[in-house]
Amino acid sequence: MRIGILGTGNVGRALAAGWSAAGHEVVLGSRRPKERTDLGFAVAGLGEAATHAEVVVNATPGTASLDVLTTIGAAALAGKTLVDVGVGLSDDFTELSHPNSSLSEQIQEAFPETLVVKTLCTMDASAMTDPGGLDGPSTVFLSGNSAAAKQTTARLLGDLGWPPASQLDIGGITTARGQEHFALLFMGIAGGLGTHTFNINVVSRSSAV
Amino acid sequence: MRIGILGTGNVGRALAAGWSAAGHEVVLGSRRPKERTDLGFAVAGLGEAATHAEVVVNATPGTASLDVLTTIGAAALAGKTLVDVGVGLSDDFTELSHPNSSLSEQIQEAFPETLVVKTLCTMDASAMTDPGGLDGPSTVFLSGNSAAAKQTTARLLGDLGWPPASQLDIGGITTARGQEHFALLFMGIAGGLGTHTFNINVVSRSSAV
Repeated sequence: MRIGILGTGNVGRALAAGWSAAGHEVVLGSRRPKERTDLGFAVAGLGEAATHAEVVVNATPGTASLDVLTTIGAAALAGKTLVDVGVGLSDDFTELSHPNSSLSEQIQEAFPETLVVKTLCTMDASAMTDPGGLDGPSTVFLSGNSAAAKQTTARLLGDLGWPPASQLDIGGITTARGQEHFALLFMGIAGGLGTHTFNINVVSRSSAV
Repeated sequence: MRIGILGTGNVGRALAAGWSAAGHEVVLGSRRPKERTDLGFAVAGLGEAATHAEVVVNATPGTASLDVLTTIGAAALAGKTLVDVGVGLSDDFTELSHPNSSLSEQIQEAFPETLVVKTLCTMDASAMTDPGGLDGPSTVFLSGNSAAAKQTTARLLGDLGWPPASQLDIGGITTARGQEHFALLFMGIAGGLGTHTFNINVVSRSSAV
């Protein structure tokens, strides 16, 4: 697929590496593409990266994402799956920018013709693209209103190494707030462990499910 | 130990059963103790349950907890470990009562002489007291400013079946907000699985920790 990844930070670059390795045609979108020619991936302006993509991935800082998407404009995003991995946090990582709401819900509201899917925001870039590198299976969540967009996203997660049994669809886009609110527990766990390289695995009881 | 559990709901009763079975002397605190004589445990008024306890457990609804504790008063709680398992949620479970903060932080601020420890709020009562009943090991978190109070709480968790390797100290009381904010992801996971009987396990990479 043609994937346009908005953002050239750790997350955007890790996802670009993972999906490129799986054979997808990846373009990174940057505010200053001419200054980012050393990344080893095709880099374009934000609008161009979105326009040419079949699937758009938001990997910009969650505090800036709505502005970035507004600048790109609804036309370039209409009808497309937008995989949103952003979380808005304060500079010290102790407060959410969208408490009791979520970035994904606000994107979906602002761009009603775009199929927003929240995923991958509950872990570090190291786990996103190498789930098999952890000591056991762990869980990635999907939230979104479009079943088709979640299917597309599920295939892309598979291409990063996420088996179907590790993917949990938790519902419509309003459940994105659960994924985003986890960011504060993520920071606590990272502090307790002394590393960001971890994920959580949902453990249930066979007889109860 | 003499444990006073404030609240006679599912959580309070499950914890009372677990700690009674481990040999502790448990008293449940109720607003209307004379109406709750059918629980199979000693029931007292809220203030009496707190006054006679060495460890107090807050298992009241998170939206009511500060009022309950204020009614009990600081004197009955001073110098004691207060194990807080409450989370304040809206009636439809989609919004937190203490966004970008936490019930535990607010209790600690209101009762500076009490040693508040947050734990067990990231799971259902069924998992709190029967962690071995799930399909594999899972994690319980501890947040609090007092190392001694966290040690006391860790022993009480052990008595419920939580081995030390499943207990993760994530830091001071401000990290309680991570545990409480998880409630929204908990609801999403419960919706996705179709059951509340589950927990999360932190999975890291041996070489990274």
